[in-house]
This record gives sequence, C-alpha cells and structure tokens, in this order.
Amino acid sequence: MFVQSSWGKHIVYSLFGESHGPMIGITLHHLPAGIKIDMEAIKKDMSRRRPGKNKYSTPRNEKDQFEIVSGMLEGYTTGAPLTALIHNTDQRSRDYSKVKSKMRPSHADYAAYVKYKGHNDYRGGGHFSGRLTAPIVFAGGIAKQLLMARGIQVKGRIASIGPVKDADLDQTSSTLISTIKGETFPLVDQSLEESMKEVIDKARMDLDSVGGAIDVVAVNVPAGLGEPFFNSVESTLSHLFYSIPAVKMVAFGSGMQLPFMRASEANDAIMYKDGAVRTLSNHNGGVTGGITNGMPLIARLHIKPTPTIDQDQKMIDIENKENIVDHIEGRHDPCIVPRAVPVAEAMMAMGLVELVADEKWTERWCPDDTY
Amino acid sequence: MFVQSSWGKHIVYSLFGESHGPMIGITLHHLPAGIKIDMEAIKKDMSRRRPGKNKYSTPRNEKDQFEIVSGMLEGYTTGAPLTALIHNTDQRSRDYSKVKSKMRPSHADYAAYVKYKGHNDYRGGGHFSGRLTAPIVFAGGIAKQLLMARGIQVKGRIASIGPVKDADLDQTSSTLISTIKGETFPLVDQSLEESMKEVIDKARMDLDSVGGAIDVVAVNVPAGLGEPFFNSVESTLSHLFYSIPAVKMVAFGSGMQLPFMRASEANDAIMYKDGAVRTLSNHNGGVTGGITNGMPLIARLHIKPTPTIDQDQKMIDIENKENIVDHIEGRHDPCIVPRAVPVAEAMMAMGLVELVADEKWTERWCPDDTY
Amino acid sequence: MFVQSSWGKHIVYSLFGESHGPMIGITLHHLPAGIKIDMEAIKKDMSRRRPGKNKYSTPRNEKDQFEIVSGMLEGYTTGAPLTALIHNTDQRSRDYSKVKSKMRPSHADYAAYVKYKGHNDYRGGGHFSGRLTAPIVFAGGIAKQLLMARGIQVKGRIASIGPVKDADLDQTSSTLISTIKGETFPLVDQSLEESMKEVIDKARMDLDSVGGAIDVVAVNVPAGLGEPFFNSVESTLSHLFYSIPAVKMVAFGSGMQLPFMRASEANDAIMYKDGAVRTLSNHNGGVTGGITNGMPLIARLHIKPTPTIDQDQKMIDIENKENIVDHIEGRHDPCIVPRAVPVAEAMMAMGLVELVADEKWTERWCPDDTY
Amino acid sequence: MFVQSSWGKHIVYSLFGESHGPMIGITLHHLPAGIKIDMEAIKKDMSRRRPGKNKYSTPRNEKDQFEIVSGMLEGYTTGAPLTALIHNTDQRSRDYSKVKSKMRPSHADYAAYVKYKGHNDYRGGGHFSGRLTAPIVFAGGIAKQLLMARGIQVKGRIASIGPVKDADLDQTSSTLISTIKGETFPLVDQSLEESMKEVIDKARMDLDSVGGAIDVVAVNVPAGLGEPFFNSVESTLSHLFYSIPAVKMVAFGSGMQLPFMRASEANDAIMYKDGAVRTLSNHNGGVTGGITNGMPLIARLHIKPTPTIDQDQKMIDIENKENIVDHIEGRHDPCIVPRAVPVAEAMMAMGLVELVADEKWTERWCPDDTY
Repeated sequence: MFVQSSWGKHIVYSLFGESHGPMIGITLHHLPAGIKIDMEAIKKDMSRRRPGKNKYSTPRNEKDQFEIVSGMLEGYTTGAPLTALIHNTDQRSRDYSKVKSKMRPSHADYAAYVKYKGHNDYRGGGHFSGRLTAPIVFAGGIAKQLLMARGIQVKGRIASIGPVKDADLDQTSSTLISTIKGETFPLVDQSLEESMKEVIDKARMDLDSVGGAIDVVAVNVPAGLGEPFFNSVESTLSHLFYSIPAVKMVAFGSGMQLPFMRASEANDAIMYKDGAVRTLSNHNGGVTGGITNGMPLIARLHIKPTPTIDQDQKMIDIENKENIVDHIEGRHDPCIVPRAVPVAEAMMAMGLVELVADEKWTERWCPDDTY
Repeated sequence: MFVQSSWGKHIVYSLFGESHGPMIGITLHHLPAGIKIDMEAIKKDMSRRRPGKNKYSTPRNEKDQFEIVSGMLEGYTTGAPLTALIHNTDQRSRDYSKVKSKMRPSHADYAAYVKYKGHNDYRGGGHFSGRLTAPIVFAGGIAKQLLMARGIQVKGRIASIGPVKDADLDQTSSTLISTIKGETFPLVDQSLEESMKEVIDKARMDLDSVGGAIDVVAVNVPAGLGEPFFNSVESTLSHLFYSIPAVKMVAFGSGMQLPFMRASEANDAIMYKDGAVRTLSNHNGGVTGGITNGMPLIARLHIKPTPTIDQDQKMIDIENKENIVDHIEGRHDPCIVPRAVPVAEAMMAMGLVELVADEKWTERWCPDDTY
Repeated sequence: MFVQSSWGKHIVYSLFGESHGPMIGITLHHLPAGIKIDMEAIKKDMSRRRPGKNKYSTPRNEKDQFEIVSGMLEGYTTGAPLTALIHNTDQRSRDYSKVKSKMRPSHADYAAYVKYKGHNDYRGGGHFSGRLTAPIVFAGGIAKQLLMARGIQVKGRIASIGPVKDADLDQTSSTLISTIKGETFPLVDQSLEESMKEVIDKARMDLDSVGGAIDVVAVNVPAGLGEPFFNSVESTLSHLFYSIPAVKMVAFGSGMQLPFMRASEANDAIMYKDGAVRTLSNHNGGVTGGITNGMPLIARLHIKPTPTIDQDQKMIDIENKENIVDHIEGRHDPCIVPRAVPVAEAMMAMGLVELVADEKWTERWCPDDTY
Repeated sequence: MFVQSSWGKHIVYSLFGESHGPMIGITLHHLPAGIKIDMEAIKKDMSRRRPGKNKYSTPRNEKDQFEIVSGMLEGYTTGAPLTALIHNTDQRSRDYSKVKSKMRPSHADYAAYVKYKGHNDYRGGGHFSGRLTAPIVFAGGIAKQLLMARGIQVKGRIASIGPVKDADLDQTSSTLISTIKGETFPLVDQSLEESMKEVIDKARMDLDSVGGAIDVVAVNVPAGLGEPFFNSVESTLSHLFYSIPAVKMVAFGSGMQLPFMRASEANDAIMYKDGAVRTLSNHNGGVTGGITNGMPLIARLHIKPTPTIDQDQKMIDIENKENIVDHIEGRHDPCIVPRAVPVAEAMMAMGLVELVADEKWTERWCPDDTY
C-alpha cells in the first residue's frame, strides 16, 4: 500500500513531521512481538546520517536522538504499533516569510505550491525536507535487525562522487559486504576518500554542490522473493529508493550497460558450486524474472547535486508573478551522497522485509507440505 | 496495493494467464462508468506489441484479439469490473517435459522453481512470459484514453538498439511527442530505423539477441501529482516499469548524468513564459520533490538482451542436480525493444491515472474552496 | 485492500461479470503453489448454491460449472493467479428495455442508476446480481481447503426462516459442526426442514418472499488471530458478510442479547479443561478484544426477504420522472436463505485465511524464537 | 487497506499508543491541504468521550488535550501527514506485575497473550484499552468537518441502556438529527436520561456493569456511495464499528427485524416527493445493493457490558497454569455506552469520507461528461 508518507502491506510505515516543526517521527504497524531491539545498532546508523558532523555536510546540528513512545516494553517489541519521535532542536528562528513566494530551481517549491495550493509548510522544505529521512533510518534499523535473524545483510557504499569512482564490487561474492570499509564514508578503496572529500570541499567553497552514486547490496537473500508482475523485487526496491530525495536513477546489476550488450555476453551462466546454485557473473544483480535468485542483490542509485546553492539563480516569485534572479541563503549539504547511504540501506531493508513476508505467509498450507 | 499480478488503489488491475494456457486476460476494477472506449485505438496499440509480424520479432504468431466479457454495455463502461480475454492460439504442442528441469541462464526458471517448489507452469515461461504484456497493453490503452480526456498524452520511442542511438529529444518542449515518428519503430530520426534493424538482424543471424533503451514521455501533465515519500512520481512509475520483463534500469530526466554534474549546471532555472511556469532545462524530467512540475515527464528504461538464444550455454539440470551445457530451442525475439515500447507507454499511462486520481479526490472539501 | 469487487491483502480476490453477460468469474492472486485442489468438494459447495434445483429457489437454471483457465497445472496450484470462469447459460432473451427505467423498491436499481449515471448493466441486476456469489463460493471452496490443512473447519446452518427457528447451537463445543445436518438445508433439528419449506412455499404462492437468519461457525481456530483496531476478527468477517446481497445484520456470539445483560452474567469464565484453555460460556462468539480466543467462532447473519416479488408496488420511472405502480416480472427466489448458506461459509473461509496469513508472516523473526 | 491499527485508502489513519505509556496518538495521511480545522468542535467531541467526568464513567481522570505536531500551519492543513498526540496523565503507578498472568473473563488478556507470546503491554489493557478511542474521536472530528463541507451530518444517540429504550427515530426524515438532544447523553426522549442513569448507577453499586445500544445516523448522504461487492457501505462501516471495543452486533435499518418479515411489508416503496427521490419507509437504512440511496443512513450497534467488574470470577493464571477465582481491582466504566457514542460517530464519519472519496475520483474522465 502506498498513500502519502505511508508504505507497506505487512509492516506499515507511517512517517510524519516537518523540517521546522517541533518533531518528526515514524510509526511501524504490525511488527512481530518479542523482538529484542538492538538500540545501539540503530543509533549507529542514525549517526551516519546525522547532519552537522563536519564540513562535508550541512551545518544544521541535530543530535537525532529518538524516543520510543509506544510498542515496546522492557526492551522487547509488544506487537502493538511502535512509534519513535525525534525532536527538532536546531531550527533557525529566521523570518521565512521573505522566501515563501520564491520558487527555487530544481526544488519541490513550485510543484508543492501547486499541489497544496500554497498551504504547504515551506519552512526549510517542510515535509519535503531530507530531515524526514532520519525516521526512515530508524525504521530501516529495525528492518535490518529482522533480516539479520534470517542471515540477510544489507550494506551500502559510495560508488562515486563527482568524477571520482570507487573500485568495482565483486558482484558474485557472497562476502562482498566485507570488502566495504568505513562507516560515514563507506568505500571498497578507502584510499579514495580524500579525493572524494576534496571534490565536495571544492564544490562547497565554490558555493556549489555535487552529485554522486551509491551501491546498495544485500547478501544471503534467499532465492524466490518477488513476483513477475507489479511486485517484482526491482519494482519494490525502486519504489522505495525513489522516495529518497535526489535519487534520479535506479539500476540493478549491470542495468546501465545491458542495452549495449548481446545475450551471449550478458547472460549469467548458472552452475552448482559446492552444492549451491550460483551464477558465474551477476549482470542481473541477483534478480531474474523479477525474483531473487540467491546471488547478491545489487542496486545502483544516482543522486543529483543538492539544488540549494548560495548563488544567484533564475527563479520566480509566485505571489508577485514575476521572474527574478535571487539567491536564497540557507544551510545545505555540498554533497548529500555520504548521508544518503544509510537511507538507501534502510529502504532496501524495509523492502526486503516485505518481500520475505510476502513469501513467508504462503508456506505450509497443505498437509503433505514437506519443503 | 501490489499483490502478485495485481496493482492499483483507484483502478485495480488484475492480470492472469500463462504463455501456454488457453487464454490470458486482465480485469480492471473501478473504472468510471460512462466512458466510451475507442476500440480501434486499443487494437492499434496491441498490434504494435503483437509478435509474429516480421523477422525482428519472435515467429510465434498471435493475433491478440481481445474479447470483453464484462463491464461494458452498448460501447460504454458500466462501472463494473471490465474483463478482457485474449485466447492463446499458437502455443506449440511440443513436449515440454524435456526442458522442465533445465534452468536457463538469466531466465526466471531457477528463481521460479525455488519460489513455487517446482509447481510453476514452465511451458514457454508460464506466467512469466512476455505474453502477459498483451493484456497490459490493453489496460494501458484504456488508461491512455482516460488521460486523453484531460489532455495528457503518453508516447514512447526507441532510444537505442545496441550501439545505434536515436537523436535527442527536446526535453523542454510540450510538443515533443510530435517529433516522434513511426508506430512499430518509433524514433525521432527515422533514418536510423534501418541501421537499428540491421543490428537486430545481425544478432538474429548470429543466434544471439541484443538489448536497447526506451524513452517514455508524457506531456500536458499538470503540476502537483505525486508525493514526497513512498509515492513519488518516480516511485510509482518505476514500480510499474520494473514489472516489464527485461527492464534493468529506470532513470528520469538526466538521471544517468546527474551524479557527474554540479548544481550550478544541473539546476533547472524556472521562469514565467507566456504566462506559464516553465523551466529552461529539464534535467529533472518533469519531477521535483517527487511531484510533477508541469514540464514534460521523461523516463528512460534499459532493456536487457532477451536471454533465450539458440546457443549452447552453461546451465543446471535441477532434477539431476548436475551442471550441463545445453541449448534450448524455442521461438524468441532477437530484440524485444520495439515490442516493449507500447508496454512502457501502458505502464506510464496506468501510473498517471493513479497519480491523477490520488490528487483528484482531495479537491473541494472545504466550503471556501475557490481553487 | 478493498476496491470495487476486489478484496484481500495476502490473497487478492478479483470478481467480475454480470447476470446477463456471457460469463462471470473470479481470479485469486497469490495462492500458495503446490496445493492439490479437491475439485469435487468445490463442486459440492457450488451445487448447494446453484439455482433452479427446486421450487424453493428461482427457476433460472444454471449448472454453474467452472472452468479454470490459469494458475493450475496437473491438478496443483502453480502459484500464479488462478482464474475460474462460469458461463451464463440461462439468461432470458426477453426485452429488458421496458424495465430499464423502472426503479424497484429495495433493489439496487436507483442507487446504481445514480452511481453509474445510467450506464450500469441493468439486465437481471447486472453486476449486483446474486449470481456473482457463484464465483465467491468457488473461491471460498479453495479457502476452505487451505484452512482444512490447518484443521480449521467452517460450516453454516439456517438459523431461521420466517418465524421458524432451528434448535440452539452448543456454542462452547469444538464438535458443534457435527451437530449440523443436511447439505442444501443445513439444520441442527432436521425435523424443522418441512415447516421451513412450508413458510417458503406459502410466500411463493402468495407471490411474496420471506427472510431468515444464518449462523456460520468455525472450529479449531487458533487463538491469536485478528487485531484490536481496524482489523478485528469481527471487522474482517463483517466486512465480507456485508458483501453478501441481502445481509442487513451481523452479530457475533450473543451480540443480539448482550445490551440487555450485565457483565456478571455475560462474562465468559475462563478455565483450563483437559490442558486446554476453554470458556464456560461463549457469549463473545470466540472473539475477545477483536482477537480469536480458541473457542468456536460464531456469527449470525440476517437476510432480508428478496425484494423482487410479483406484486404491484410503488416505484418510480426515472426517465419519465414519474411515480408509477408497477409489477416487474422476473424469476426470483421466494427465500434466498438456503442458497446464501454456502456463500456465508465462503466469506468466513476467505476472511479466516487472511487472518491466519496476517499472523503467520510474523512468526520466527528473532534468533531466539522458540515459540 | 487494513493493517493493525491503520486503516484507509484515501486518508490513512495510523493509530498508536498504550493505556499506560507516555502518550497515545494518531497520524492522518493525505488530508486535503487548505482545510481550516475547527478545533473547538473537536474538543467538544473529545470531551463527550473523556473519562472521569462523573460517576457514570471510570474515575480515571484524563483531560485528553491534544497537541498537533505536524501537518498544520497557521490553522490550516498543509496536506502533509497530520499527527496529534495526547499525553497520558493519570496512569496509576501501582504494581501491575501481580495481575500480569491473570487472564480475565471476556477480556483480550488471553487472546493477546497467545498472539503476542506474552510480550504485549498488559498494563491497563495496553494497546487494547478503550483509551485508544480518544485519538479516533480526534480523527473523526476532522472527518466530520470534511463531510460538513458537503452538507453531510453524522450523529449518534443512545438507543438503550440495559432494559431502558429511547423513543424511536423517524427513519425517513432528513431532519431526524435535530430530534436527538443532549451532548453526553444524546437521546430523542430526554426524559429517559434519569432512568438510564439509574440503571448504570445500580450496576455500579452492585460492582457490576451493564450494556446498551447505540444508533448512528448520517443525513444528506448523496445516493451512489459504496460498491456491491467487498466494499459495500455496510462492509465499510461495519468494519470500522467492529473496531470499537465491546461492539458485538451491527445492523442497518431494520436489520434485526427483517428475517421475520416478508418483502411485501419490508420493501421500501420509492417515490418522487417535492422533486427528490425518497422511500416511504427506510427498512434498508439508506443502503440498497450496498450503495447509498439518499435516505438517512442508519446503523445500530450493540455494546456488551464492560467485562471489568469488582467481583470474584473464574479465570486462569497462565504462568502457573492453574484455575483461580480472583477479583482484579481497577478503575472501570459501569457502562461504556455514553462514551462510545462519539466514537461510533467518528467511525461513521471516517468511513463516509472514504466512500465519498472512492466515488469522487471517478468523476469527469470523459470529454462529454455532462453529469
């Protein structure tokens, strides 16, 4: 189900809040009861996303501490809806009315103004703000722990920032996650961290911003998740990835290169290897026919450069109905890519829990069911 | 809502059938009553997708005539569920049991075998077959007509086949659809049709197949459709596009290039032009903040080469649990891209109807509602 | 999910067709694969609902044979959508245009005319016809078989027809289903069958019709199904029961009497009995807090008298916009209650499968999960 | 859509919290933007439900003040998710561990213990508590205001408490709501208030409780809402009513009497009257064929006596696995009926908004749409 800021069929995620309201939060409906939540693991993920840590992210400083107000008792889920609240603490008290009518390039401003007839909370992007990804990382942290109980692991890495690209992933290895190093700047080749940071810092000093790419992978995903039509693994995951602000491309496996290949080179030969079914290459990124095939699940996301920049730009004043050139001050990230990695992981984890649940309920409905 | 082969919240699309069963079909729940369906327009789209037309597609010859068995009276929709049936007429009567246990590379075979515990209909791909896209084109034909009543037009074109690329689209023009010429081989630059066909024919003669790319565009889409989280325009459309067999990448606007750009070049300046709000470039493909902004909606899809090829390949025999090298005969498309264009259009049209409906119900709920 | 004529979250049921169209049918999405369907059991249920058997039902004679056109292979479900078609064979060829504009009392005619702006298929009630319950009985037959694999049994009985009431059910007994005798006229006290039939026959001869009540029970339902809010067992089942034409009341346990009781008499004392937890009475009908408690699940439905009668009645002609007194000929049931029993069983079975599935997916998500 | 404590397809209601947690709350997703909420009207409804007002309800004293933390700006809805929090202030600090393992008769205790494997928050009923109806009344208050903009009015009354019955409603009158007098004890015949209160007070002094019945009506409901199958008006509303704790029967119109009537007396003759289509009786309670017919919508609910009573009762200790006779102290309502009236109104209002929205989106999709 997908209705504005809510998603899911087995677990329903209900997201709320605005950048400059008192708090943001999320409710998870229908979590299994009796799960012991590892709070430290969630805090770690949230800290990876948290702003204000260094010059590579926005100076807005939020601790992003969450308070669970329902659905837990003595450290375990109760099975009732679990709600986490995160208080906003570093909203600026400036006068926003000056910017209310200025529709910034490549921002949601104009689209939202039309949609909500001028009633949307425009302060700091309101409900459109990347701040809303904090509760998503919280929810994803729980989803990751559910997956972990089944051995499934999810991890993201920065694939590129501007022109600097990380080393290739070994797409066929079930231990590929161990090759990704670093928490806030996860890379295969950590020696590239400095050049990536230079790209960001240069953009920052030019009062500009820069985009990049992210890979998200999951390993030990059982074969058989997903459906051929309307609920393929790619459908489910791209649906979620495309709810991350700034994502403008989602590919699986070698999706970017496949149009330029023939089947004789693109097909993933399939073999028994030590008793397990494996493919020799993984151009399909772990999904064939919309269904997982047991190989690592690999998605690539493209992140556009943050549109907020401290430069004069052509835009409109929608109340005066005039073209203007203006320059909206505001705190922003010169590159959102590193902070988007845990968000992408969260989305993949949420999607995988649903896909596992879709499959799980179908088990053992016949008397002779021996599988 | 998305449950195996069904999709939608306002209109529910319920798809059924297998490649080698007696018929395939689709039911549309909750169509508005009193719509006069233009059957010729639907037949035209279905004919664009239909196999067996020429050497560039599979030799399986299906007329793809549909029979509407419910939901219509005297040429108008009644408002009750509308079901269309398409009889399969050219199934081969060969013995499929020989191939049952052979899991072909890059096909759904193995994933489906695991998922359905060996009970899936494996004949010709069963429910996974591209044949199931025929009812989707039917449904999309109806969705297109609903959109047309609001002035919204949807159209696809072949962006590339193998290495041959069509000319660029003018991404900011609201008349860009008129620049796409040709029905079964829609291109901006029709002079490229022959070289694309040569690429396909060469693959066919090499007993191989080749991939390609598709652009799907919609114009006159009102600003304000979509939601920031979990139901963005990109989420909804990519969800549907990724239910088209063989799609492995979905990008919007300049999604492929954006990671390598800075905001100062990537931002779409926004201006009044002849009273309308337009952007000077359209790197966002008509969507900002997950919401349409009134510019042309532009998506690119990557289609992998059809995995069925008449060549020896490494695969497994899952009943004998052994590695084999085999060569599965069968009718197949040397390039599925041209036939996938109307399917991609159908998916975009279905998605847009939902997005319009999502927005439409929210109108006029307050007494002083003057917008 | 509930969108016109479709229902379900785990299995989606997609119903289509009209009384006088070529066929009616239903698609079941997301059935588990590998289920061997007992066709004879389904045929038996469908025969209980089938019209034209005797003078106690409508003379319209339909065999109600179903044809499965997808989702089965060699007697087992494949996991793909399963579609069953039932051809209409005894539509009358009379001229319906005379009755088109006459809005009959207590029928859907006027409400449907307004809803569908006069475009609904009015012939024989169109999609509103009780004929559409035939595919529901088919679907319920499959649901019953799924439940049977878990030991859950569903059964209905006629509780009353007109003033004649069947004997009381033993509401606390897990073997209460065995006390219900008879297929097409299921009763605890079969000696009442004749007097009930007399009531029906007398109504028929008076060109009138008569209502009645049905009890539907399920035994061996595990404790723990359902949710406190928005998805209680009563919510789910009443939702489905109220999709049976003519149902105007749904009660659980002693729901009709409870407002007139005090807790000291109404409370169901709870005890261990032979190691199992049982209640001494069952005024709650097996549901407390919206959740099953392991006692027999008991629902009562009230069925209004079939509104079609061969008598002059006050009604309107909506095209001439005038009040008329008219008498619409047509085949109808003098009492629909006996034929509604298998439909009520089908609905309860479909509901219980969803409730079991809701619960089932939540199992075994934590490493120390020993329950 | 219905997933534990969440409901809705157009507006999603996401409910959370426990009786003895820090707060309870609700999020409304997808409210139209630009609605000016009348806070005083909501407070009034909440005050009608609020406990601790007098000796006829539980002594637990909660102010039930709500705080809106998202989705509003300057008094108007923004279109983003609207979340209201209600702090619990009068939880008792007693030691609940003594009662944890005692499963009370006719309570959710045992069913919940099984469902949640002993992990549910058992303090004061946890998430099962009637306290959770406070946020529902909040949400219903907003739904009522949406309906009011379309002229639709919703109102409940106490139909009976124990043996004392209110006067009959005039079921055919579009002004019937004006005949219901009183806020916290709404009745047609206010002279009965005292005798009803005596019944309650007598039960209270006997350390017992008593049940009752409620009528909920809506007027000016347009004809044409609802669907014949799976989404009938009765399905939608009974689904919601059965999420109110203690409801055990839901009937529409004369649903309780219809089984004992013949069509010749039960049919609602249909006539033009002053240009409008009206029925002379309203045994169908405003719904025919599952669809509203423009007559007053009338539902009756039966409320069981509150199961918590200060008397010794047979129950089990589930940890010691033994039968006990015990007496659980606790604050409770001697009769919940008066406080349930605004909850029933809220549910009907929420249901009607969905039904209107279902219909609304289907309008004006064809060029010649003149209706």
